Amino acid sequence: MKIIIEENYEKMSRVAANVLLGKMYQNKRVNLAITAGSTPVKMYEYLVEDVKNKAYFDNVHYYNFDEIPFKKKTGYGVTMSNLNKLFFEPAEIDSDHIHPLDEKNYKTQDARIAQDGGLDLILLGIGADGHYCGNLPGTTTFENLTSVVDENATENMKDILLSEVGGDESERPDFYVTMGPKSVMQAKEIVLFATGAKKAKIIKQAFFGPVTNDVPASLLQVHPNLTIILDKEAAAELD
Amino acid sequence: MKIIIEENYEKMSRVAANVLLGKMYQNKRVNLAITAGSTPVKMYEYLVEDVKNKAYFDNVHYYNFDEIPFKKKTGYGVTMSNLNKLFFEPAEIDSDHIHPLDEKNYKTQDARIAQDGGLDLILLGIGADGHYCGNLPGTTTFENLTSVVDENATENMKDILLSEVGGDESERPDFYVTMGPKSVMQAKEIVLFATGAKKAKIIKQAFFGPVTNDVPASLLQVHPNLTIILDKEAAAELD
Amino acid sequence: MKIIIEENYEKMSRVAANVLLGKMYQNKRVNLAITAGSTPVKMYEYLVEDVKNKAYFDNVHYYNFDEIPFKKKTGYGVTMSNLNKLFFEPAEIDSDHIHPLDEKNYKTQDARIAQDGGLDLILLGIGADGHYCGNLPGTTTFENLTSVVDENATENMKDILLSEVGGDESERPDFYVTMGPKSVMQAKEIVLFATGAKKAKIIKQAFFGPVTNDVPASLLQVHPNLTIILDKEAAAELD
Amino acid sequence: MKIIIEENYEKMSRVAANVLLGKMYQNKRVNLAITAGSTPVKMYEYLVEDVKNKAYFDNVHYYNFDEIPFKKKTGYGVTMSNLNKLFFEPAEIDSDHIHPLDEKNYKTQDARIAQDGGLDLILLGIGADGHYCGNLPGTTTFENLTSVVDENATENMKDILLSEVGGDESERPDFYVTMGPKSVMQAKEIVLFATGAKKAKIIKQAFFGPVTNDVPASLLQVHPNLTIILDKEAAAELD
Repeated sequence: MKIIIEENYEKMSRVAANVLLGKMYQNKRVNLAITAGSTPVKMYEYLVEDVKNKAYFDNVHYYNFDEIPFKKKTGYGVTMSNLNKLFFEPAEIDSDHIHPLDEKNYKTQDARIAQDGGLDLILLGIGADGHYCGNLPGTTTFENLTSVVDENATENMKDILLSEVGGDESERPDFYVTMGPKSVMQAKEIVLFATGAKKAKIIKQAFFGPVTNDVPASLLQVHPNLTIILDKEAAAELD
Repeated sequence: MKIIIEENYEKMSRVAANVLLGKMYQNKRVNLAITAGSTPVKMYEYLVEDVKNKAYFDNVHYYNFDEIPFKKKTGYGVTMSNLNKLFFEPAEIDSDHIHPLDEKNYKTQDARIAQDGGLDLILLGIGADGHYCGNLPGTTTFENLTSVVDENATENMKDILLSEVGGDESERPDFYVTMGPKSVMQAKEIVLFATGAKKAKIIKQAFFGPVTNDVPASLLQVHPNLTIILDKEAAAELD
Repeated sequence: MKIIIEENYEKMSRVAANVLLGKMYQNKRVNLAITAGSTPVKMYEYLVEDVKNKAYFDNVHYYNFDEIPFKKKTGYGVTMSNLNKLFFEPAEIDSDHIHPLDEKNYKTQDARIAQDGGLDLILLGIGADGHYCGNLPGTTTFENLTSVVDENATENMKDILLSEVGGDESERPDFYVTMGPKSVMQAKEIVLFATGAKKAKIIKQAFFGPVTNDVPASLLQVHPNLTIILDKEAAAELD
Repeated sequence: MKIIIEENYEKMSRVAANVLLGKMYQNKRVNLAITAGSTPVKMYEYLVEDVKNKAYFDNVHYYNFDEIPFKKKTGYGVTMSNLNKLFFEPAEIDSDHIHPLDEKNYKTQDARIAQDGGLDLILLGIGADGHYCGNLPGTTTFENLTSVVDENATENMKDILLSEVGGDESERPDFYVTMGPKSVMQAKEIVLFATGAKKAKIIKQAFFGPVTNDVPASLLQVHPNLTIILDKEAAAELD
């Protein structure tokens, strides 16, 4: 486990971008699974600038690791829509290099990634509850591969799903799909980043506490190639 | 996870020896942690023949991953004595290439291995109770690095320790040391092998059941580079 | 450069087989380019036994690195016919895992291998004139990728081609194809093996003398991951 | 061979810095050999900012690959003085992480690097004459390891040495030391960068022309992991 602590969100985001870029400058196919959400907003701003119109990155392929489908709307779900907006569209990534996971193909996600040569790196955020990807406490367990999670998986899952689709009940799906803990652990490298004081407690708990399904991200601490990138606030509870 | 099933103990042992040899033919330092016990007896017979007096294996370094000290007797404990008899002595391995873990240096085991470049491969057996190294149910938990385990860790630990020193109460130690689950997971590659019908049930449980501290070896199923080598009897409960 | 010296042809062949097997026990696609000829005869005897009917080697793919087409006979040329007889047929390798280079597809050989993820290992023999693959003195130069070599490339090329097709003038082709020096150097690992006193001089010259197109194999000494496996006779001129 | 072409010197320098950083974010010792001179000036400006006071880069070790000793002055020679000024001092690199090659220890350079685990990356510039490190046409040949080059090696070597020490005849040494072609090729990855129209011709010649000692850098084109980073002017003669 390598821990990188940077002064602030901007510098943390720059390092995260650099770690991704470092994987990308290779003369072979590189497979990256990347995260949507708010943590990576700044990182994608940097990456877009570094990646847009660069023919020399035609070796890089992108994967999403979870998806929340809209109930009625067709096309991309919540995750891919967000990735599209933050990165794929502004960076003008060719669609041949984007490999969406969705509710129709999730059963083959692990096999497809293995067939493509495996993930060189998976970039994860972490929730205050210790979740990463769609692995929330009570939804998946460590031995799960890519899975569907039902609206009844936990008490408040319906609320979470409603919130994810912007509060529009007519679009609230009754499930989502996610790469499971075992799927994520198969990546050659795992990078997890976090920003802000609200993440300080879970960072300590997940990476210096017990490995338990109650804190899903705690499993990642036993991966042989894990890098954690934090700003000072998120690292505040570490020694 | 790659599963290799061979017809019988001899062929399984030959494949295990080949997997180790495959790592050893390199032009750089190679660090191997290897197992004592009964499962590897035949494998070491093969290896001794392939390794003895071979100057071209002077790049290979060996580590033990647990040790049960004798209470009075000085010198090697149970594990190193066994490895010495099965492999190091007959293969005439130079002592400079053997890095014993013992009760005096266990606190630095993880740091020393990291300093040496990490383990390229760790070869493990498995007990019917799901233990590997000295990680028995109730002794260590997934987040543990190299640890000392006390004679009171479990109800029957004193009996186990007595049995390990050959039933001589005057030599029964009140603790042993072992690389913990998190230490083992840091290896670049994990190889676990098993023989015989008495292992069939635990093989299914550990590698196709839940990841739980109740079955210590179940954690290994999430390592990104795990190979399991079985004879037909040990594989009997797999599909 | 790692040099492995074994007592005799049989032991040298066993080590060569072991080095190949060591690459094959992986949970990902493995691409091997392998040599025809007389040096590998014993090695393939060993390999056939280790590989035949082993479902756990379904990750391994095989490539030939040169081909001499018959003038009239259709089907495989000299190299693939030989590999078929020595290894693919007796080991019952599935045709989906064999990727023949021939006179029709040679222009795409390098691109196809790159597309498949590159060669994990290429196993080469060496001629007394310093040739490997079809890179004979006077035919290719270090910067060449996979190339066609004409019957007029060197003074005695027509004789060589005649000899290769068994002396039947009606089958003598007027060219052959070979992976060039630059193609071979792209492999992640190069293994070269040699047997017998008649190779002793060229082994010293190629690996301890000048890097020159006059001794094609001399280029291999600068590859970052080269292993040379010799019996004592072939190693006789080394210090 | 991966070719990266950027619009101008600044962007080319940023990418070169990123490639180095990408290697450095690892949880293991990383060995980098880096170049002095004018090409890297901007890159080091970027790197200093990214590396200075970053405890998380305490895994990185630095090597120089050539040295021109001053005749009278003691202490660092030309190369290390330049690296010190451009990078080590402003970035406040700990001296324990700097491994100087000099005229006293050059005979052990290759062995020391091998002992340290090998070079993960060597960053090279290129001269208009095709030289890299101290491998000028007529000084070393492809099979050379780290070598001493005499003032009489080529016709104008005395002038070159005089120029390197700033024109002070009293400081002109009668030799220099350099890692040889074979030493450089042992690195796991080679990165070569160039800027400006005056490098356009040699870039084409070295990487798309014959592999010949007359153009020392031409050997690099056969390395299995070579990245070339150019600005548009340096790439002007490529298709």
